Parts: sequence; structure tokens; C-alpha cells
Amino acid sequence: MRLVSFTVEGADHRDRVGLVDPDGASVTDLTDLVRSRTDATGLSPMRALAGAWEALRGSLTPDAGPRLALADLALAPTVPDPGTVLAAPVNYHDHMVEMSQTSHVGALGVFLKAPASVLPHGGTVALPYTDRRFDQEGELAVVIGREARNVSEVDALDHVLGYTGCLDITMRGGEDRSLRKSFATFTPLGPWLVTADEIDPTDVDLVCAVDGHVRQRANTRDLIWSVAALVSYASSAYPLRPGDVLTTGTPAGVGEIVAGQEVTLSLSGLPDLRVAVAADRAVACPTSGAGRGPVPPPTPTPTVAVRS
Amino acid sequence: MRLVSFTVEGADHRDRVGLVDPDGASVTDLTDLVRSRTDATGLSPMRALAGAWEALRGSLTPDAGPRLALADLALAPTVPDPGTVLAAPVNYHDHMVEMSQTSHVGALGVFLKAPASVLPHGGTVALPYTDRRFDQEGELAVVIGREARNVSEVDALDHVLGYTGCLDITMRGGEDRSLRKSFATFTPLGPWLVTADEIDPTDVDLVCAVDGHVRQRANTRDLIWSVAALVSYASSAYPLRPGDVLTTGTPAGVGEIVAGQEVTLSLSGLPDLRVAVAADRAVACPTSGAGRGPVPPPTPTPTVAVRS
Repeated sequence: MRLVSFTVEGADHRDRVGLVDPDGASVTDLTDLVRSRTDATGLSPMRALAGAWEALRGSLTPDAGPRLALADLALAPTVPDPGTVLAAPVNYHDHMVEMSQTSHVGALGVFLKAPASVLPHGGTVALPYTDRRFDQEGELAVVIGREARNVSEVDALDHVLGYTGCLDITMRGGEDRSLRKSFATFTPLGPWLVTADEIDPTDVDLVCAVDGHVRQRANTRDLIWSVAALVSYASSAYPLRPGDVLTTGTPAGVGEIVAGQEVTLSLSGLPDLRVAVAADRAVACPTSGAGRGPVPPPTPTPTVAVRS
Repeated sequence: MRLVSFTVEGADHRDRVGLVDPDGASVTDLTDLVRSRTDATGLSPMRALAGAWEALRGSLTPDAGPRLALADLALAPTVPDPGTVLAAPVNYHDHMVEMSQTSHVGALGVFLKAPASVLPHGGTVALPYTDRRFDQEGELAVVIGREARNVSEVDALDHVLGYTGCLDITMRGGEDRSLRKSFATFTPLGPWLVTADEIDPTDVDLVCAVDGHVRQRANTRDLIWSVAALVSYASSAYPLRPGDVLTTGTPAGVGEIVAGQEVTLSLSGLPDLRVAVAADRAVACPTSGAGRGPVPPPTPTPTVAVRS
């Protein structure tokens, strides 16, 4: 099942939730169904749906609401208003090596990204500063579907609603990690989620490209902490709630992105996530962390074009 | 004006918001007023009130709702459901010295704490691990009352709804900062907020004591980045929204807290914030960051008792 957050052009611009048809051309608008069976008007319908997943999943059929053409919709981030966004700092060995780090997720734990930093597929990453390096980091993200507190690794995946693409856009330097990764637009999430029954999170191919040149290529089997281990650990540190997002870490190949470029994340079993990069309102950085913090690798020379 | 979040014993246990009378004995329940004039049933009434502050502030009088005895109420965190909780990592020189740090807020920026880590006055901090050091950090916190994006230092305080006490409970070690400060119950907030018109944030005395022994004593005039500078900077990095919380950093005197102790934060012009410490469900820490990260000072020897 493919679940999408979107708004309708010309309508009230409030977030809606829909079921993407198998042909990928139309969407069944589930918003009224979710609204009528949940009590959370301050939350997005995707988050409300996540909170009532077991009760509602059987009702989510192509005739459960009005049919809309996908092309007419403006996509929203997979979860427009996650309560918490957690991320794994160093969860692939090759990324630990390229960053000259001696610690990985097992010593660092997980970190927070600002929920307000989410961006939809098709959106534009706005680089805030003229004088700092910003990198792309492609990742597989998990959307929580059932409250999780101290769940075991064996049970962890039962708490996952589904999977979606995530770019953990990052400023390099000595500022706090949660800041460097949380500027507005720094968490592209999308285009939509595919429910957990359709994805094996131990075998997802990941390819991340900038302007068609592949920078990152990996498979989630190489995660240091698997998705199940990560959900289990995160649930021991935080009460995970429906609609929370947990992104699983990035492999080697991070590199600088600049205004005018386009970043594409391809994950097997999921639609491509694509965003533009701009710096129209960038200013001089007010903090002095440049030249401190973990040293990133040189930006890869473009060598492999995905599309000719 | 003193605004408090609370629940009523025996009622539906949903968060409510009230006006504390000057005598501190009774509370006017503003919940129905806020609910009838805002549209956000998924948000706490405190957060809804913050979002409609200019429209509602004139209506918040002692006859605007039922009067309740303060003693009958269970307090909730000042904002039970902040969208974002931001914090200043090193914002007093004496704390930078005691932590042997070479960077302060000017190089580190601000960091995120998990909104789900809030705890009310009178609550109990639950230490999660048996084998790690946890410290008290007393701070003055700001509650945002008006959306702020790239506001100047001169205009920053116009976006503040009010002030409240905050304990930034911290695990020491090499794990990510946003994790070490975000375990459930690690952000006591309360007892309530005092609106910005009644507090001069450049001159707030701070005293933080453990079991009656003073550990921290400071005044906000010694902040490296003033409250106005911090709000201005934070608004350049994040879109600040009504109900967001920004805590301003802790002075020297951090020290270990253990189960059975009581932590009290006194801020001039605000009621005391008091919490207990327990470790009933603590387990061995699953991450290996002990012995890494900034080195904290030895825990202070009790020398000064606040109350005999």
C-alpha cells in the first residue's frame, strides 16, 4: 500500500492523505475517512492515520474516497508534522571511514532532527549560508505506526508503518549535529511511504545521485545497526509514537551540494525522491564552527552518470 | 499573568490551561475559552493559546472560566507538547571553563531536545541507566508566542510569550548531545509561565539546589548570548512557532544526581521548579559513549544548605 500526503491546488491547502493506485496515476483521497474516524484536527491526516493504523487499515481501499489525478496534486512531506525525527549518525562502516570517525551509532546513539525541517518531493533545499559546506546524505527512513517503548529487536518491525526516502541534508563544521542537520528544508521526505508488508528493510538498494552523477551506492544489509536494531534501540531512549520518523544513516559518498543542483535518491521498492538546491536567501553564517568538527571527504568528481 | 498547564483529577486527564490568581491559591480554567476560539484539538490548549495570543490575551481574566483550587490540580509541563525544544549548549563562561570547553554557543549554535522529554513540576526524573553519570542543569526557558523567522535582536523579545523554569537533565559521555539530553522526563518545565511583560530577562537570578544544597548560582546578565540574541539567532536557523520552547543555557555548578535526590530551581520572578530523581527501571546503557565527550567537573561537595 502506498500512502501519500498532499495538498490540492486551489483548495484550503491543508494537508491531506491518500492511497496511491498501483498504476501510479491516481490517488484515492482518504482525508475525510481519517478525519471521521479519528479525533486529532491539529495533526496532519497522515499522522492521525498512523495513530489509528490497526483500526483503519482494512478500510483503505480505492473506493474509500474521491479519486484524484496524481498530476494535479502538490505533494507534502510523507509525514508533514512528525512529532519526533530521529536519525542514526554513523551507521555504515564506509561512511565512518570517509569521515575519519572512530565512533559509530553504537557509541553515538541516535540524534534529533527538527520536525519543522521536512520538505516534500519536488521541493527545494534552501542553503542558509553563503560561506559553509552543505552535503547530501541519502537514507532509508522508517515511519512509526504503533507506539514503541523498549521493544525488542525481534518485535521492532511490528511497530513500523512503512518506509520512505529521506535526504539528511547536512552542514559541515563544529556546530551541534542536531543544528547542522535541521535547517528548514533539510529533511526531504518522500515521495510517499510504502507500507511495511511490501518492503524487506534488510535488503534495500540505495543510490543517491547529484545532477545524474552517482555519489552513493549501498544496500541496507550493510547497516551497522539494522533497521530492527535501530528501532529497538531508539525505543529504549525515546517513546516512539505513530508518525514519528527514524532515518537510518547514510553510506559513503557524501559530498557538497550547491545552488542549481538536483539530488535524486533511489531506493528499491520505493519511488525516487528528487529535490532541487537553491541559496537565494543565503547569508553569512552567524556561528563560527567552520573548520571544526569531523572532516568530510573531498566532494566526489562526477564520473558515473545515471542518465545520459 | 501566570499561565499554567494542568489536568484535573478524576476528569478526562486531557491537558487544560489556566490563569493562576495573584494569591497563588486558585486557577481560572481557560480551556473552554481557548477551545471555542481556536481550531486545534490535537494540540494542548497552552499551545493553542500561544498560537492565538494577540487575539485572546485581552479575554484572559479571572472570570473567564470556572475557578479551581490550585491544590486540586495535577500540573502538566508548562507546554505539554512543544513543537520544538531548542537549547543553548554553552552559554555561561563559567560553565565553559568547568567543562574544559573551548567552544561556546557562538561556535556551537543551539541544539534540539526531544519535545517528548518534558516533565511537570512535582514530577520524577527517571534515570534510564545504572552505569552512567547524569547531571542537573538549571536554566531560564523562553516560550515563544509569535512566529519568528530571522528576527533582529532588537525585535526578538516581542516574540516571547513568557518565561518558565527548565532543568536540562544531561547524561555525560560521547553520545550525541541531543540524545544525552532528551531521555523521557529529562526536560522538567514549570511550574508555569510568567508572561513577558512581567520579567526582565537580562536580570533573572538563578539558584539551583540538590537536596537543599546550592550547586548553581548565577544571573542571566552573565549569559554569553542574551535571551534576545539567542531568540534572534534561533529564529535564523529554525522557524520558531508559538509554543516552541528555547532554554537559555546553564551556569557553572553542574553535578551528578542520583535516585532519591530532589532538585530545586529558583528563578527570580518565577515560582520554584522542583522534581524528584529515581532510577527504578534503569538498565545497563546500550551505547558505549562513557568516558568520551566533554569531561564534567567533579560533583560539588554539599556545603551550602538553602533551608535548614
